[in-house]
Amino acid sequence: MNCCDLINKTKRKQALTENEIKWLVNEYTYDNIPDYQISAWLMAVCLNSLTDEETLALTLAMRDSGDILDLSGVNGITVDKHSTGGVGDKTSLIIGPVAAACGVYVPKMSGRGLGHTGGTIDKLESINGYRTEISFNEFIDIVNKTGFSIVSQSGKLCPADKKLYALRNASGTVDSIPLICASIMSKKLAVSADCILLDVKYGSGAFMKTIENAQKLADIMTRIGNMAGKKCAAMVTDINIPLGRNIGNALEVIEAVDVLNGKSKGKLYDLCIDLSAKMLELAGKGDIDICRKMAVDAISCGKAAEIFEKTIALHGGNAKIVSDTSLLPQPKYSHKVYANKTGTIQEMNSEEIGMTSLIIGAGRKSKTDSIDMSAGIIIDKECGEYVKEGDLLLTLYSSSVTDFSDAENRALNSIKII
Amino acid sequence: MNCCDLINKTKRKQALTENEIKWLVNEYTYDNIPDYQISAWLMAVCLNSLTDEETLALTLAMRDSGDILDLSGVNGITVDKHSTGGVGDKTSLIIGPVAAACGVYVPKMSGRGLGHTGGTIDKLESINGYRTEISFNEFIDIVNKTGFSIVSQSGKLCPADKKLYALRNASGTVDSIPLICASIMSKKLAVSADCILLDVKYGSGAFMKTIENAQKLADIMTRIGNMAGKKCAAMVTDINIPLGRNIGNALEVIEAVDVLNGKSKGKLYDLCIDLSAKMLELAGKGDIDICRKMAVDAISCGKAAEIFEKTIALHGGNAKIVSDTSLLPQPKYSHKVYANKTGTIQEMNSEEIGMTSLIIGAGRKSKTDSIDMSAGIIIDKECGEYVKEGDLLLTLYSSSVTDFSDAENRALNSIKII
Repeated sequence: MNCCDLINKTKRKQALTENEIKWLVNEYTYDNIPDYQISAWLMAVCLNSLTDEETLALTLAMRDSGDILDLSGVNGITVDKHSTGGVGDKTSLIIGPVAAACGVYVPKMSGRGLGHTGGTIDKLESINGYRTEISFNEFIDIVNKTGFSIVSQSGKLCPADKKLYALRNASGTVDSIPLICASIMSKKLAVSADCILLDVKYGSGAFMKTIENAQKLADIMTRIGNMAGKKCAAMVTDINIPLGRNIGNALEVIEAVDVLNGKSKGKLYDLCIDLSAKMLELAGKGDIDICRKMAVDAISCGKAAEIFEKTIALHGGNAKIVSDTSLLPQPKYSHKVYANKTGTIQEMNSEEIGMTSLIIGAGRKSKTDSIDMSAGIIIDKECGEYVKEGDLLLTLYSSSVTDFSDAENRALNSIKII
Repeated sequence: MNCCDLINKTKRKQALTENEIKWLVNEYTYDNIPDYQISAWLMAVCLNSLTDEETLALTLAMRDSGDILDLSGVNGITVDKHSTGGVGDKTSLIIGPVAAACGVYVPKMSGRGLGHTGGTIDKLESINGYRTEISFNEFIDIVNKTGFSIVSQSGKLCPADKKLYALRNASGTVDSIPLICASIMSKKLAVSADCILLDVKYGSGAFMKTIENAQKLADIMTRIGNMAGKKCAAMVTDINIPLGRNIGNALEVIEAVDVLNGKSKGKLYDLCIDLSAKMLELAGKGDIDICRKMAVDAISCGKAAEIFEKTIALHGGNAKIVSDTSLLPQPKYSHKVYANKTGTIQEMNSEEIGMTSLIIGAGRKSKTDSIDMSAGIIIDKECGEYVKEGDLLLTLYSSSVTDFSDAENRALNSIKII
């Protein structure tokens, strides 16, 4: 096979065969095709898209480029969940324990974050002692004991995705629905849970800026998941404003614990109930109303919080944080930001608020940056609320930054009061 | 500037500014941008095209990446001509002397060939002693003495084009009208003749397979040439069948000499008169009918042939070939190919006949291959002619190949008799 011939086929909107796509992925993974040919192909995919069959072939070839987990050691039906990501999204820390409390198993692999705040793994590492890198046997053991574990994604999973993702980032070829689908689904299929729930975000700070594109991505991911033999469903959810009130690593753990303890209701709680219910429905626990009630009960009876506590302990982490969040890293400095005018909050730009948290230390600008676990933002007002000039809008926290003036300006610009 | 931002603009059909395009070309030429970013951008250009302003900016940035010739030493108006190339195209060897005989100056730089047969420079090197690499001063001197010279294109012209062309070839990003335009016009503008005539070929074996695309390429190249301050015109001509009867390096010189000596009329002669007349019209020698008559006279009075002879002599070549073509390299072996059925010749596939000449030694498969100057094909019949089974169709010549069976099959397949 000749790479230019395949590039030309995609350029001319002729579908590649399964074997041609396998060849591309394998030869690229083993460094037999240069970056400049694959980046040209990726751009052709961005502009001409792929058929469902091509997207499936790409996803499976990427899945098969590395290890595929064997979850047969788990004592029941397994459910995985993936969010396409957004500022303040700490749902994995909540819905894992909730679903586990309802009798399904949630063996989850997550990543670190690049950008606004850390990823789920970074957030967990704000818990003193929590080991995110454990052996596969220990992972399965914890899942069997508590129903839930989150570990750092193994480097042996989907090496093709790792290479392709880095190239996409460096060649302006990120925003393609089939490429995003293949990147996410190859990893999900390599983890190989029985059921997969996808939380596809739209709005500022998300890959998908519009609900229409998010729905398209949700549809193709669900189709690919089903074609690959998994029970798969997707929810399309709004991230135009940050999810919940806390942004930052330890701060997000605090908010997750508050939700699990039944102390925090509102949009984050509602979304977590919706997602948990959908996971339970996928796993065959009953219709959506029954599943929703199970999820609500799992929080109100305290079982979900208990599972989170036990899981943290088995990972070597300080489980006392579930009853006393002051044991999490505390910021040295804080700075309150007040409304500079009176009116109604029309917009809280998620991406801009994320960037604000980044500049006070909550995220990474480059892969090797370290994260200030205590840094972040607590938002005091909701979108749609009426505020008076001088009212508290949000508080900035950091242990690494003392001058909050840039962050304050950015935060004020991100909140539109009319 | 950030390369990914520029890639994304082109991907989203947002026009780049002149400065952005200059930056891309310069940084790539100086190896400050990796191939994989430029190939992604090239693919975006292939699929989304460029505006005229972007194409002009690209062309000028590529022109300015290397030397620009100073033709002020030539004693009159200069005319350049470029053909987009096709099997059997030896027009440069004819129209240069014809135009020079009519009082314009034709300082021409040509390239070597990759593929079917050699380029104009390879053809000239089949003339014993002809020096294609001479100093710039000697080049100008010959142009002033005879009105015409062809030399090998300087390596210092358009280094950006050299790099981009190699990358396009290796990344499936060749067939884009603005990219082809910029590649051709940057070189033509670096040669910087006062007038530029473009012969844009369409049909099998040409970049442009359809007359519509050839017309589009002709239009944009003319516009770019005019925008860059040159007198510029284009002709769109058919290369579905090979141009003339002879294909191969020495064989094409023979046919060119026959046309210059008035011994060969037909399509090649007609096209050369058309092209020469257009060059003269561009140079302000009168209206097209007057210019056509001048071109016809230049051949019939023998002046064009005389100029070719003098030019060869000044280049150190054996000028006697103009009166005795048997002094050109003679093939050791030949093989006649006869019609295998009776009927009318409906098609002579230019590309396939070109490939036939390649496999008997007339062209290069890779840059470092040497050429068999004597190898090639003489076609005995014309498209549309009625032939009987057993009639001679063509003769294959080579000094490097003795087994003509593959070439015979390929040749027979390329000629459709119905």
